[in-house]
Amino acid sequence: MVRIAVDAMGGDFAPETPVAGAVEAMQDLSPTCELILVGQEDKIRTVLDKNGASLDRISIVDAPETVEMNEKPLAAVRGKRKSSIRVGLELQQAGEADAFVSAGNTGATMAASTLLLGLHPGIRRPAIATVFPTISKPVLLLDAGANIDCGPRELVGFAHIGSVYAREVLKCENPAVGLLNIGAEEEKGSQAVRDAYELLTEDPRLRFVGNIEGGGILKGECDVLVCDGFVGNVVLKFAESAARLFLEVLGKEMGSEVLNNEAMSRVRSALDYSATGGAPLLGVKGVSVICHGRSSALAIKNALRVAIESVENRMSDHVGTELAYGANQ
Amino acid sequence: MVRIAVDAMGGDFAPETPVAGAVEAMQDLSPTCELILVGQEDKIRTVLDKNGASLDRISIVDAPETVEMNEKPLAAVRGKRKSSIRVGLELQQAGEADAFVSAGNTGATMAASTLLLGLHPGIRRPAIATVFPTISKPVLLLDAGANIDCGPRELVGFAHIGSVYAREVLKCENPAVGLLNIGAEEEKGSQAVRDAYELLTEDPRLRFVGNIEGGGILKGECDVLVCDGFVGNVVLKFAESAARLFLEVLGKEMGSEVLNNEAMSRVRSALDYSATGGAPLLGVKGVSVICHGRSSALAIKNALRVAIESVENRMSDHVGTELAYGANQ
Repeated sequence: MVRIAVDAMGGDFAPETPVAGAVEAMQDLSPTCELILVGQEDKIRTVLDKNGASLDRISIVDAPETVEMNEKPLAAVRGKRKSSIRVGLELQQAGEADAFVSAGNTGATMAASTLLLGLHPGIRRPAIATVFPTISKPVLLLDAGANIDCGPRELVGFAHIGSVYAREVLKCENPAVGLLNIGAEEEKGSQAVRDAYELLTEDPRLRFVGNIEGGGILKGECDVLVCDGFVGNVVLKFAESAARLFLEVLGKEMGSEVLNNEAMSRVRSALDYSATGGAPLLGVKGVSVICHGRSSALAIKNALRVAIESVENRMSDHVGTELAYGANQ
Repeated sequence: MVRIAVDAMGGDFAPETPVAGAVEAMQDLSPTCELILVGQEDKIRTVLDKNGASLDRISIVDAPETVEMNEKPLAAVRGKRKSSIRVGLELQQAGEADAFVSAGNTGATMAASTLLLGLHPGIRRPAIATVFPTISKPVLLLDAGANIDCGPRELVGFAHIGSVYAREVLKCENPAVGLLNIGAEEEKGSQAVRDAYELLTEDPRLRFVGNIEGGGILKGECDVLVCDGFVGNVVLKFAESAARLFLEVLGKEMGSEVLNNEAMSRVRSALDYSATGGAPLLGVKGVSVICHGRSSALAIKNALRVAIESVENRMSDHVGTELAYGANQ
């Protein structure tokens, strides 16, 4: 039985959307999963009633405080000790849940995950791993915004924990690791990236396939793409906005009815980065999955799937083993 | 009369495409413009004959050597003294041309432009400025890949030369300058970006509108977007590949005939970053415009327009004045 705590107050459309996503997940996902909705109990109960949901494998844990999207992460985590984010992660800390999923304040979820779950040895901050859907296969990009000004050793760390996630959760055997860069040649890029290239080449535990340019991401030229959180975040947000712009231009030129036919809804979902669900925080001792603030119920459901698969495949244990091996070399 | 030297040997489809682009430009662009095709004379003449072009305002200057796309820039510039890139830029150095346009080896064009034209005071390397087409207006992004590991003063320099280009060439009055970052708040980003934020805020000669996230680029949230060349290059190449992927997915889902109707060709051109033409190298004393290696004749023609407008609006003089003012503060 996998037990997942869901931040019912997190995101732009809370509690409606997280609760609706949880209810959908109960119908569609693993029958051996149990959800704990964390937040203001009366509000959650109202939404559950509206959804006519069976309370079979859904429980509620009250958390009267809510961290707003624009609050300073650390201050919010320290100040609001009864927030849904803290209470939800404390359940995992206490062994009463196996994972946490939130569409709330990303910084606060990261800070609280670090504080309450702890980090595997050798990790300074958790990395945000995001799956880019490409035509051929998913590409796991990390870091997507948590780690700025990364040195070469951090980039190599991303390669290791990303490879573990790709192998154990995404079931990609012997994942190919790429380094995001501005050219294919070894001597390209910033000092940190050039140094990382050297370390990655020499690392016998990784299948390093070299530099990947911006144009190679969507071509699926690797399974795990390593980069500084600054460039990862910019590319990710650009990709999301480009997909929206593309559909907007298309609707404008071809009439909005074109957007509603069946073929187009397949195009839309192929371009919808949020449909791939939440991004796991890699490096924490446990499972914590973050979603976009504007996540739909579908996105929440997909994030729950990510959490379930991470727990079932003992992702955090594998990350710990990988990092411990590295530390002993 | 604006005289432009065109690298007839530059790009993946040379000399056919650069020559065809030059011929098209003669028909469509400024009647007061004169083109000098630089490269292997016999080959250029053959292509001109095939295009049935009038040689009215087109001349040829022979340059027997060609820099290949994969050659090391500096070695190629030093070693091949009769290359089309060097000879083309020497025409400008000698006052026999006002601008140079090339779809050849970008690094070699940059190196030769720096060497032969020189840089305005305060500039360490020229910046590559690329226009992103958005639905509402063009956004000038710089640097797009020439300057890596930029410090705050370099980023502020990009803001100045980008503002000059936006104002004098793109005719954008009082351009809004944005700083590419991973959040809207002042304290976000790498150390260099945070320091640049402070300098930009205090600079009375700029209209700084704050941080712009990856998702804001295509929304046209600013006119000039400043970033390190690493992230600029990654985003630019990602954008180009995303546009191709969108069209591929669309063709796959809706049938390839959908790509050929009139509405779709408008969608395609809205997404076609190469259609906006060449990217000016800003900071050199003169006009040098670089194009993609795989530029079409249309892209070359558009790059020639960029060159003509840069010359007619005395872009390089204005950049020099702006930088001299900054140096005297």
